[in-house]
Amino acid sequence: MKVVVGSPGTWSGLLLRTGQCVFAGASIGVMLSAFGFSNYTAFCYLIASMGLQALWSLGLACLDIYALRIRRDLHNPVLVSLFVVGDWVTATLSLAAACSSAGVTVLFVRDVDFCRRYPQLSCGRYEISIVLAFLTWLLIAVSSLVMFWLLASV
Amino acid sequence: MKVVVGSPGTWSGLLLRTGQCVFAGASIGVMLSAFGFSNYTAFCYLIASMGLQALWSLGLACLDIYALRIRRDLHNPVLVSLFVVGDWVTATLSLAAACSSAGVTVLFVRDVDFCRRYPQLSCGRYEISIVLAFLTWLLIAVSSLVMFWLLASV
Repeated sequence: MKVVVGSPGTWSGLLLRTGQCVFAGASIGVMLSAFGFSNYTAFCYLIASMGLQALWSLGLACLDIYALRIRRDLHNPVLVSLFVVGDWVTATLSLAAACSSAGVTVLFVRDVDFCRRYPQLSCGRYEISIVLAFLTWLLIAVSSLVMFWLLASV
Repeated sequence: MKVVVGSPGTWSGLLLRTGQCVFAGASIGVMLSAFGFSNYTAFCYLIASMGLQALWSLGLACLDIYALRIRRDLHNPVLVSLFVVGDWVTATLSLAAACSSAGVTVLFVRDVDFCRRYPQLSCGRYEISIVLAFLTWLLIAVSSLVMFWLLASV
């Protein structure tokens, strides 16, 4: 199995996983601090999905640290298959959550003008949280592609 | 390059592409027939994205028919790289469109109760169109994975 940038058990892989955790955590934090998010299903789903993403990435980051410390090679097909499935599922859920929240926010800001009519809605924070969710998705997409590439090139 | 189910220039590949075209076209048709869709950015984006998907899949379906007729092998790395990029871009856009529209529809149906308050909104049609968009995404996701697998296993 080749070793490419972002493979499991490498420094670049650890960096990717840490980035995913940080952005997902930041997205949850900003959304939780926004007034009225709990009235909207899409925003609650964003928090759930980012929570799952953060947990998954944290688990893999710990595994990377362990592999780096004891210099163990994580490139075996069974382990990589597991990473591929987990990465793809969480990546799809993250993109779905980010897009559905973005759809609702665009509706609030542009289509029905809720943000101007109800200034107590924290539209700015919704937007920041969604941008952070998209950044998380970008990083997990890179991880997923690397893992799938590793698995396919066995 | 291996030949797997759904590869370009095979009957299964042609079936997948035709399915993508049909579902994307049906999704556009149902959305266009729904009252008031044009007031909402997410629904307009759904139509644009499904239109792009239908065009891309139609193009590849024609290529499959051509390859099947003259028994030409389409498994060369440059061509498959092109298919991979196109498939991934359209798949991501389709999922984004389906999810953002789904987010808005869930908001209308559950969170702000627009569907009951404004019975002239065709909420049922929005839902059918979104389900069709998700089916389109499912088929293009299968195509994308097959193409990426083909490219990685060269």
